[in-house]
Amino acid sequence: MAEKKSRVLVIGATGRIGREMVKASLDAGHPTLALARQSAYSDPLKSSLLRSFAEAGAVIITGSLDDYPSLLAAVKLADVVISALPSAQSLEQMMIIHAIREAGCVKRFIPSEFGADPDKVQILNMDHGFYKKKADIRRRIEIEGIPHTYICCNFFMSYLIPSLVQPGAKVPPRDKLKIYGDGSVKAVFVLEADVATFTISTIDDQRTLDKVMYIRPPGNVISMNELVEFWETKIAKELEKTYVSDEELLKSIHDIPFPDNSDLIFIYSAFIKGDHTYFNIDKAGVEASCLYPNVKYTTVKEYLDTLLQEG
Amino acid sequence: MAEKKSRVLVIGATGRIGREMVKASLDAGHPTLALARQSAYSDPLKSSLLRSFAEAGAVIITGSLDDYPSLLAAVKLADVVISALPSAQSLEQMMIIHAIREAGCVKRFIPSEFGADPDKVQILNMDHGFYKKKADIRRRIEIEGIPHTYICCNFFMSYLIPSLVQPGAKVPPRDKLKIYGDGSVKAVFVLEADVATFTISTIDDQRTLDKVMYIRPPGNVISMNELVEFWETKIAKELEKTYVSDEELLKSIHDIPFPDNSDLIFIYSAFIKGDHTYFNIDKAGVEASCLYPNVKYTTVKEYLDTLLQEG
Repeated sequence: MAEKKSRVLVIGATGRIGREMVKASLDAGHPTLALARQSAYSDPLKSSLLRSFAEAGAVIITGSLDDYPSLLAAVKLADVVISALPSAQSLEQMMIIHAIREAGCVKRFIPSEFGADPDKVQILNMDHGFYKKKADIRRRIEIEGIPHTYICCNFFMSYLIPSLVQPGAKVPPRDKLKIYGDGSVKAVFVLEADVATFTISTIDDQRTLDKVMYIRPPGNVISMNELVEFWETKIAKELEKTYVSDEELLKSIHDIPFPDNSDLIFIYSAFIKGDHTYFNIDKAGVEASCLYPNVKYTTVKEYLDTLLQEG
Repeated sequence: MAEKKSRVLVIGATGRIGREMVKASLDAGHPTLALARQSAYSDPLKSSLLRSFAEAGAVIITGSLDDYPSLLAAVKLADVVISALPSAQSLEQMMIIHAIREAGCVKRFIPSEFGADPDKVQILNMDHGFYKKKADIRRRIEIEGIPHTYICCNFFMSYLIPSLVQPGAKVPPRDKLKIYGDGSVKAVFVLEADVATFTISTIDDQRTLDKVMYIRPPGNVISMNELVEFWETKIAKELEKTYVSDEELLKSIHDIPFPDNSDLIFIYSAFIKGDHTYFNIDKAGVEASCLYPNVKYTTVKEYLDTLLQEG
């Protein structure tokens, strides 16, 4: 008989990171369940995604967080629950925690974080509760004694890199650009698919039980100056740079109403405050690329190559 | 955390015995999966049944034996697989066995038998392969080394009892009836819901691992003479009896084309040959009501009471 693999339930399976989790789980040979709302079948993109999941061997369960019996029934089938809910729904994860407690079979819960560490970020006064809600979910998980791993992938590669950190732009600049702060602070960008591969690698790994897993692979920890230099080398042209000071950035964040200033807030967090990298990983944490040296991931440089083809 | 319960997959979940298995599994607190064809949703009765399963906490998986990836994906989520396919589909269980081997996670397989013991019946020359197919499935299970329990419930209560063993009749006779043989041979009748309750009781029980479980509860092992006597007492009237000899019954079986003679074949097996009771349960077997004395079951007498109300 084949080795028994943990059964993985992905909640929020049709979302940007959820779909990658389903694929990575199937790729790793896990029996995989995807919870989808009935309404997903009326959405052409989502229904085609669900069909592709089913063809690849996933089991689609119709249900939602609003329908607790359906959520509980799904959780009862899972050894591992991965929440990939959008950040706006962070607090709805309280229902998942409740179901995990009631089901009693879940060996690992991965709550929806997939960003910076909510216990480390230094912008809690300006993010309108974005990280506070994620921290609250951590505390609830810990109080309930639910085995867990928190995944801090920092930024998704598709966020900010396609514009070279120029809010509002769709493609990287070819003439001039803004650099926030002095351009030396390092942020971290990881491709969604790689986040999923690293996440799935942790679920049966005792080394990551009840830990924070930071994803900081070499080649993905990068300052704005380095990013611009890579890009200039690729397009063989020097760009005109305007430096935006901390004070100017804070003034813009203050002057522009929320949520239109969200990108600026996250830029302030990552490139001024250094929220992705200002701290060393302590005993409560592990680093993904150290734990899983065989995982092939896309570096920022490689990702910039794909932008060059499109630009 | 609550005790972890085996996850049960029922294949053939909308059928007569399958629906009882789903209910009994849910009643016993097992996470329960029901495999249903897409087409079941177009059938008003089946779709309403599936809806009631989902409301009671089962997870409905769309799939079928014809769609191997869907079958495999479902089996991978299960610790226990219960096949409740109709007898005509007995050999299609080879696909289930294949999926169980590939999935590698199934701790118990209950193939679809729910009749007399196919290794004990003495009518293999006249049943058109009915029991041979079930015996073939047993041999395949054993060759593949799949942990199993075979359930021999003999006859369902709803088979033959409502007519007092008068083929073709819809209600029990109130004037005269036929008795096959001398009326002293004992057969066994068990309510479908009770078969399911006993079956679900075995799935995490090491005493039934790789055994045949016979369901022969006191009050359900009965001869035609006893059955008629019970009925006569209930209706306070003596019936006129015609005794049909072995030879006469065999002649009828021979003269009537298959499958119209099926009831007579099963009557011959049970009430002439004594296929339900002619043997003692040996070391390869266990008896359900001895193992699970707390299971409340309906006796033949109690069942006859319900017929009286209708008659």
